[in-house]
Amino acid sequence: MASAIRDLAHRSPDQAEEYLDTHQSEWERIAEVDPNSAADILEALDEEGAADLLEALEADDAADVLDEMRPEPAADVLEELAPHEAAAYIAEMVTDQAVDLLAALEQDSRDAVLAALDPRTRREINRLIIFPPDSAGGLMTTDIASLPQGIDAGEAIESLRRLHDELGSNLTYVYVVDDAGRLVGVVPFRELVFARPGTGLEDVMVSDPVSVQLDTDREVVAELVQRYHLIAIPVTDADRHLIGMVKVDEALEAMQAEATEDITQMVGVGAEETVFTPISKSIRRRLPWIVLNLFIGLAIALVIDQFKDIIQDRTILAAFMPMVALLGGNTGAQSLAVIIRSMAVGDLPRGRALKAVRRELLVATSNGVVISILSGITGGIVSGEALIGLVICVAVFVNLMVAGFVGAAIPVVLRRVGQDPALASNIFLTTVTDVVGFGGFLLTATLVL
Amino acid sequence: MASAIRDLAHRSPDQAEEYLDTHQSEWERIAEVDPNSAADILEALDEEGAADLLEALEADDAADVLDEMRPEPAADVLEELAPHEAAAYIAEMVTDQAVDLLAALEQDSRDAVLAALDPRTRREINRLIIFPPDSAGGLMTTDIASLPQGIDAGEAIESLRRLHDELGSNLTYVYVVDDAGRLVGVVPFRELVFARPGTGLEDVMVSDPVSVQLDTDREVVAELVQRYHLIAIPVTDADRHLIGMVKVDEALEAMQAEATEDITQMVGVGAEETVFTPISKSIRRRLPWIVLNLFIGLAIALVIDQFKDIIQDRTILAAFMPMVALLGGNTGAQSLAVIIRSMAVGDLPRGRALKAVRRELLVATSNGVVISILSGITGGIVSGEALIGLVICVAVFVNLMVAGFVGAAIPVVLRRVGQDPALASNIFLTTVTDVVGFGGFLLTATLVL
Repeated sequence: MASAIRDLAHRSPDQAEEYLDTHQSEWERIAEVDPNSAADILEALDEEGAADLLEALEADDAADVLDEMRPEPAADVLEELAPHEAAAYIAEMVTDQAVDLLAALEQDSRDAVLAALDPRTRREINRLIIFPPDSAGGLMTTDIASLPQGIDAGEAIESLRRLHDELGSNLTYVYVVDDAGRLVGVVPFRELVFARPGTGLEDVMVSDPVSVQLDTDREVVAELVQRYHLIAIPVTDADRHLIGMVKVDEALEAMQAEATEDITQMVGVGAEETVFTPISKSIRRRLPWIVLNLFIGLAIALVIDQFKDIIQDRTILAAFMPMVALLGGNTGAQSLAVIIRSMAVGDLPRGRALKAVRRELLVATSNGVVISILSGITGGIVSGEALIGLVICVAVFVNLMVAGFVGAAIPVVLRRVGQDPALASNIFLTTVTDVVGFGGFLLTATLVL
Repeated sequence: MASAIRDLAHRSPDQAEEYLDTHQSEWERIAEVDPNSAADILEALDEEGAADLLEALEADDAADVLDEMRPEPAADVLEELAPHEAAAYIAEMVTDQAVDLLAALEQDSRDAVLAALDPRTRREINRLIIFPPDSAGGLMTTDIASLPQGIDAGEAIESLRRLHDELGSNLTYVYVVDDAGRLVGVVPFRELVFARPGTGLEDVMVSDPVSVQLDTDREVVAELVQRYHLIAIPVTDADRHLIGMVKVDEALEAMQAEATEDITQMVGVGAEETVFTPISKSIRRRLPWIVLNLFIGLAIALVIDQFKDIIQDRTILAAFMPMVALLGGNTGAQSLAVIIRSMAVGDLPRGRALKAVRRELLVATSNGVVISILSGITGGIVSGEALIGLVICVAVFVNLMVAGFVGAAIPVVLRRVGQDPALASNIFLTTVTDVVGFGGFLLTATLVL
């Protein structure tokens, strides 16, 4: 990429206009030969700067760049344009990308842009926009090669030759349908090519291929694509009428979204939240979990309050109790993370779960031995009291062991009861490590001192 | 899947033998028509039971099942078998899967199995096993269609016809090499088919295609495959000699591993740790981070110790300070999770980072208003002192605001200095929310009371 545009992507957004004055042709060339990099640049700029750059392009090049952008930032840019201008770009886009982009627009803008579209594109988009973006219907493309079952391989190749330009890389699989348009088979394109010309399509096809329905969740779609090493999976309605297909690159994005949703789920943030989620929605979704934490905090306060006499007697205990909780929290979070990750990548079938919990308990206990001795010694030195050191040592060991076990067990239990294994798991874990950390420490102190 | 085998997968592993006595033919059929499900069953059983089931199959069916298993559990099963038996299965496996499986074996078993292999397979495996599993060399297959640049489309199709059985679905792209075997172009197989027979390969190929080198990291491989919507990416050595290709399904697994490594990285667990990591390695890797937490805990103890007079005076403060820290920890973790996740899926280019931090600060502050009032009221009621309620209210608000900002800023800063944005991020965050939670609360109390 030329250096002037690279500079732009890392500098202040309002320099877009200045850049265009001097580098218009460079920008046009980038958009044409590498729409992906052009998309990166637009995503890094603010909406106004990005809109200026987009308007400097021919409609088809602008559409190629929009195809490569994520729907949310692309929608932010289109909101800056007049509806007829946005419509001109959208008409040139790949249909399923255009649908995602329109779905990301504010209601008003969407209506205005739809009204400015030509009737054919509008009809096609209206047909697809009803599917949720996380369903097979929302992920699919309708540009597919489908042929009737009666013909032979030579006729099939001739038909496909005419569709070739329109379909491009979508021509990896050829789907075979019956008279009613129901999916009956699939032929990899290469099998068709190497079949003898007179061979019937039915003789080379795989019957009853793996398929999904319009409302199938993206997680299932991605799993099937991965499991059967597919390049695309056909999408049908409830009566097996062939509607479209989900390509592996769409499945890949879905898998990435699924694999990363655990990160947010663990701490009480919705599975679908990203930096593009409207702020008001983020506030509403996260608040209940913080309120839950408030009650947990009050419960911990009541536990600690039971030990107020010994705290008054030995104030140093108040100083050390957070350390015990902190060490348990970290150890438990490590076990939790390994289990959730292993589940997310499919490494932990139900039959192996207990074994994995035992493994985590062993790791936590081993580290517990080292850390409890270390913390007992340092705690004893800092407090100047050997007995305080002993209390710390015992409480840390117990909390680390409990934390390792509970951290590993939480996702196993959540999955067993049919929940997402990550759901608020870190909040549940912290509750245990705090209660055991604060309460266990003060209880040990009461017994020992 | 038949019900007897489904029962087996969810029951005690030692029932494998009993199952085989009565259902041998059912098991053979499952392995043959759905090796993927057979692989799931073996992964869910213990090694001995799985080895019994594997031995009950023909070598080529057993190899198909092993191809679909993850390398680590597959290696556990092979350790149960005699080396010549394991070698017989491995010889029938897809080469790159066989290499991954051998790499997962213990050194002794690996040597024994390699010695029992036929010389040709051994040579091929030895050539590939040197590449780390997270590099392009470790992910690639060497079964590729490569043709010399001088020929025409008709000749190309004829050559490919002979290779068709061997290559199967690897025939999506045809790579073009010069006399020295260097990659000069790529032709999608369908373009070759629809080209006029006399057209030169050079006239239909895309010159200088995107490629990776043997030592390219899997993260980069996966990004390029996703970015350019590829079905496979060619792998070359440093001199551009074509060696193999990484298929999209391998890239998909790599992407999944990358996307989920943040979960473990956040809490001080290595990026590559799963439930299959040897326990001793897990202990060694996690321990330094827990020791760091120990020092953080000691530092917090010293901070709290500065306030020992007021704690002795008002013991109730010791009871409420964990609540303040807990609320900050949760709020900060929410911001941290959203930023890390957005970075992982590529939603947050550098230019947008500040905007995202502002967004998190806003969400945390808004929730801070609600939560600080709620916690102030409930804290005041529970403690029976309005002033304590006021102290809680102020301290919670400050901690939540700081937590939201710091939680969002940590991954941004880590990325800016060239580190993984998730690296121990949750440990850094907890340090801040604990120091501000405990110290800030006690400081406020000293000022107010």
